[in-house]
Amino acid sequence: MTKKIVVVYSGGMDSYTVLHKAIATGAEVYAISFNYGQKHSKELLVAAKVCQQLGLVHKVVDIRMINELMVGSSLLAGGSEIPEGHYEGDNMKSTVVPNRNMILLSMAIAYAVSLEASQVFYGAHSGDHHIYPDCRPEFVQAMNAVSMIANYQSVEIIAPFLNDSKNDILAAGLAMGLDYKNTWTCYNGRDKACGKCGACNERLEAFAENDTVDPLEYEG
Amino acid sequence: MTKKIVVVYSGGMDSYTVLHKAIATGAEVYAISFNYGQKHSKELLVAAKVCQQLGLVHKVVDIRMINELMVGSSLLAGGSEIPEGHYEGDNMKSTVVPNRNMILLSMAIAYAVSLEASQVFYGAHSGDHHIYPDCRPEFVQAMNAVSMIANYQSVEIIAPFLNDSKNDILAAGLAMGLDYKNTWTCYNGRDKACGKCGACNERLEAFAENDTVDPLEYEG
Repeated sequence: MTKKIVVVYSGGMDSYTVLHKAIATGAEVYAISFNYGQKHSKELLVAAKVCQQLGLVHKVVDIRMINELMVGSSLLAGGSEIPEGHYEGDNMKSTVVPNRNMILLSMAIAYAVSLEASQVFYGAHSGDHHIYPDCRPEFVQAMNAVSMIANYQSVEIIAPFLNDSKNDILAAGLAMGLDYKNTWTCYNGRDKACGKCGACNERLEAFAENDTVDPLEYEG
Repeated sequence: MTKKIVVVYSGGMDSYTVLHKAIATGAEVYAISFNYGQKHSKELLVAAKVCQQLGLVHKVVDIRMINELMVGSSLLAGGSEIPEGHYEGDNMKSTVVPNRNMILLSMAIAYAVSLEASQVFYGAHSGDHHIYPDCRPEFVQAMNAVSMIANYQSVEIIAPFLNDSKNDILAAGLAMGLDYKNTWTCYNGRDKACGKCGACNERLEAFAENDTVDPLEYEG
């Protein structure tokens, strides 16, 4: 039987690279995206387009109801404004949905069990370690431990870029010949990327660090 | 600050007992129920009524979309018929939604983080160990390990009846003076309990073992 991998794929740079990392293993790849009412739902459209181009099954799960579990997240439609600037400390904490990665991974694992897939790939990386507790290596390790025993079949959780920075991920993707025009990062879901929000700043920095020009169009 | 506990409460016997176990600690208790399209959604109505009587906040989360993650579960509305008889081996495996407890617990943990609750109680018990991998002590232990580190605040997962049978749980509840008329077990959500499905059989056996008559009304 062909090996199957489920990839948690948001449409952003990191998970786009992870998606291609999974494809490069020769496994049958299934992409899963989550609509949790994020303002940048343009990500989801980009994700759908990429999967269509690659001929991949793309499961989109509407989990907007998780909003009911929390208060005050500015990542969600209807919440407060997205903070501008860099991903640093307190001003970005407001974008954290409690326990989000555990919720998303638990569903990706369910999907993997249904498909008899043996692995779930997701895009945690070292740049998020100090901001999001559920992006740290100890979280991935603990999620893997529970995922291996939670069902009749074991599902392994793999974060291929866990110890890499966003710059490293971009470097890996560029080396694989990936075109990052097929990704969306901006927190504001307008026609072109804003170039000002924390996510855009981080993205632009990664391209600068890699001495490459971002192929995406920006406002202004 | 008063200690807060979130209880995963389905409206069934086990979680009804767990709910009262949490209340007995003196903590502020928040009940969370999940609508995953189960045929016995009458459980949810019973749960709502109990919470109202007890003056508890009752959060009901609609997670019917998890149906899209799987195939062929007979517990879900529109699926195949509920098997009659006992909970034994293969004929009950068809009622298992993949990774369900991890999904439910991940949301209960998110709710706990929002509320600044330190614990999540749920009703895993030894009777389910051999049928559901996600009811076993090693699962609870692993879920607790990840829950303790997944967010800025630690949330402890507690299954107070983990090593007890359904009979033991009933015995504990009867000793606490609980009225099991306030619970629903039957897999068929008709006016009265059917008395024939696996869930009813198990329930009736627990009452017989405790030399007590089930206060619930049954068909026929």
